[in-house]
Amino acid sequence: MRVLGVDPGLTRCGVGVVEGVPGRPCTLVAYYVIYTDPADDLALRLLHLDRSLNDLVAEHRPRSVAVERVFSQHNVRTVMGTAQASAVAVLAGARAGLPVRTYTPSEVKAAITGSGQADKAQITSMVTRLLRLDEPPRPADAADALALAICHIWRGGTRSKLEAAASKHRGGAR
Amino acid sequence: MRVLGVDPGLTRCGVGVVEGVPGRPCTLVAYYVIYTDPADDLALRLLHLDRSLNDLVAEHRPRSVAVERVFSQHNVRTVMGTAQASAVAVLAGARAGLPVRTYTPSEVKAAITGSGQADKAQITSMVTRLLRLDEPPRPADAADALALAICHIWRGGTRSKLEAAASKHRGGAR
Repeated sequence: MRVLGVDPGLTRCGVGVVEGVPGRPCTLVAYYVIYTDPADDLALRLLHLDRSLNDLVAEHRPRSVAVERVFSQHNVRTVMGTAQASAVAVLAGARAGLPVRTYTPSEVKAAITGSGQADKAQITSMVTRLLRLDEPPRPADAADALALAICHIWRGGTRSKLEAAASKHRGGAR
Repeated sequence: MRVLGVDPGLTRCGVGVVEGVPGRPCTLVAYYVIYTDPADDLALRLLHLDRSLNDLVAEHRPRSVAVERVFSQHNVRTVMGTAQASAVAVLAGARAGLPVRTYTPSEVKAAITGSGQADKAQITSMVTRLLRLDEPPRPADAADALALAICHIWRGGTRSKLEAAASKHRGGAR
């Protein structure tokens, strides 16, 4: 299963593509950071982000997209841009007909490190180990996007197994 | 000049299409409210909004799009959805190759009523008079979207005249 994870941001948007199955080590496919210029018009920035994400979805053909869920409790100065970038990311997946899941930062941290309180350095270090990389992915936005993709593979896997079991059960009951 | 105004919201998104030139009464073309179900998945809601806005842009072929600028000072419970809906609206214009302008609520209120402090009832009442409608547009989201479109025609007009004067001046100086 190939998953495209997005750590949304208007100035820096992390994208990570990971291949894997639940309970097994995942493999890095690629990671990117999409930059937009804060001096540019909002329309231009959203358009650049939209086109870049559409291109990456078309290039890597993931089975699903995972996006970090944004909370209004976040940094108030940047939260509006983050919310707008997350909308563009969710749309990029939905328009391609892909299932899109959102995860809170705590869900991702717990899935990757075992603790919902992990800091950025711990996330980067675990992502580097889990994907058996020689170097940590930089910048941190890319590591966060890869963490989202890994979280989705592992959790989606659990859900898929449950769904398979449930549908088998339903099938048996017919 | 035909303008499509958007009062962004995830549950209710107002859209108003107005035709006019600066300093003259404007004419109503159409108004809509796009609803999405809060019980639905975020991806489905953004996709429905995206498709509806793209359809309205294609149907009415406006010369430009005006979207209300969202502030994080707004209602914290709804601000994330509003920011995401505004991103979809700005993108719908940008993807169609149209100029997109954002206006703060105070700018719109000042342009329509002469006061940046006007309330929703005053906006609705002025929009009804300015467009010479028999009935006030309902719900208020539609009136706000029409107010945005009128604001853009009047202010854009001022800018166009300045630009025309500037380019005439540049032409004369050659």
